[in-house]
Amino acid sequence: MKVIETVAGMRECRRQTAEPVGFVPTMGYLHEGHVSLVKRAKEENASVVVSIFVNPTQFGPKEDFKNYPRNTNRDLAMLEPFSDVVFMPSDVEMYPDKYNTWVEVNGLTGQLEGASRPGHFRGVSTVVTKLFNIVQPTKVYFGQKDAQQLLVIKKMTADLNINLEVVACPTMREPDGLAMSSRNTYLTPEQRKGAPVLYKALSLARDKWSKGEKDAEKIRLEMNKLIRKEPLAEIVYISIADALTLQEFSHLMQKPALVSMAVKFGKTRLIDNIILE
Amino acid sequence: MKVIETVAGMRECRRQTAEPVGFVPTMGYLHEGHVSLVKRAKEENASVVVSIFVNPTQFGPKEDFKNYPRNTNRDLAMLEPFSDVVFMPSDVEMYPDKYNTWVEVNGLTGQLEGASRPGHFRGVSTVVTKLFNIVQPTKVYFGQKDAQQLLVIKKMTADLNINLEVVACPTMREPDGLAMSSRNTYLTPEQRKGAPVLYKALSLARDKWSKGEKDAEKIRLEMNKLIRKEPLAEIVYISIADALTLQEFSHLMQKPALVSMAVKFGKTRLIDNIILE
Repeated sequence: MKVIETVAGMRECRRQTAEPVGFVPTMGYLHEGHVSLVKRAKEENASVVVSIFVNPTQFGPKEDFKNYPRNTNRDLAMLEPFSDVVFMPSDVEMYPDKYNTWVEVNGLTGQLEGASRPGHFRGVSTVVTKLFNIVQPTKVYFGQKDAQQLLVIKKMTADLNINLEVVACPTMREPDGLAMSSRNTYLTPEQRKGAPVLYKALSLARDKWSKGEKDAEKIRLEMNKLIRKEPLAEIVYISIADALTLQEFSHLMQKPALVSMAVKFGKTRLIDNIILE
Repeated sequence: MKVIETVAGMRECRRQTAEPVGFVPTMGYLHEGHVSLVKRAKEENASVVVSIFVNPTQFGPKEDFKNYPRNTNRDLAMLEPFSDVVFMPSDVEMYPDKYNTWVEVNGLTGQLEGASRPGHFRGVSTVVTKLFNIVQPTKVYFGQKDAQQLLVIKKMTADLNINLEVVACPTMREPDGLAMSSRNTYLTPEQRKGAPVLYKALSLARDKWSKGEKDAEKIRLEMNKLIRKEPLAEIVYISIADALTLQEFSHLMQKPALVSMAVKFGKTRLIDNIILE
């Protein structure tokens, strides 16, 4: 497995990489969710590139960029069996002095995560465009856990005619239902015990839906009630929206519907979602 | 010469196109300036792709999008000797319903043309990104006549790590010095007689500079005086700026300096520039 730290080095390496090339962009501190993406990329391509880059431009000034968990040695050991190349650029390699070009997807980025995290998706679309241009993959793999990010990247790829296929992969969960996330490591043991309440609320929504409930507001209220029973949980948003446009349903739901939420435990902000079809 | 109207068709064709691929994006209504770019692309590459697309998103609501001159048959005849492929998509092929992704270069786009034409460079960077992704060229050719556009595209290409080389080509001029432009066709015979005043003013600046004048404000004033002698000319701006950052020089000039201007004749807006080194 080659580890490459410069754009020029990655381009050089790419010329010798067997096609098709599967690509998994990550911010490191890998867990089984990431590994599932890399395994899938390995199954579907002749070679696999993984990037590890904690992208500063997608963090707000009050967010956890500096404290975002990092453990490169462990990451590399986890990737070794599945990845051919790891691209691990420095901040200044990606954003040199006077960097000033931005990619924005309008329409899908003002609500949900975008509402809580202004500028977040501009940072995501920009870094993903850059990584796509550097790695020039055939297929790229993203987790369904970041549902809005996945939609934004699919829309950006289609709109900008980027010549690759975006593959959505299912959310990986702990045995108690908690969606895997690098940020789970921030949770205290007490908070960790309460954190499965996100998935419990999503499961409640699925249950109501499968029993014929079509009123989004009723389901949101039930989810809200369930989460409020968990004393350490603080709801940021609970959304039931059109899974393609992210238009919030006021009452009558249509499928596919994205049920998503952000919930804080202390300073730690967790997100999760399911799609109802 | 193949003429292709769809993105899918262009991608298919690109797979069979010999590399390196030279690319010249145009808005059609070609003149000798465009042809010089295409000839240069032919000299330096195994194959040449030219696009003809009057990009609606770079025109302001009060600008000349609808009336922009078009003559496809003449364009194709002019390209036949030099180009292998002409990509000529429709508006809806490039901007389908619900299109909503934009590329912006900050810092270089608020002044000069960007000040007179809000949103212009956002449209340019976006369509150029799309065309680069569709055509996937090795080298792209732009005229120095649109000096700010050239800077914006170079900056965008570097910032977004787009894997190609941007080649700047000299401005082509009529015998009396008027820079070639598709918009020259709008000029009445009277206006056409006055139009070489732009190049006369630029030549005056070069003359002063080569004689040792380093005060940008003095040169701007002399240029202003010269252009005001032409009764049909209405100055939009006269700029002497750092040729890399577009920072306007108040007095002491440094090289390379971009001397540029926009001047209106009736409704027709002409631009021209030179670089002092």
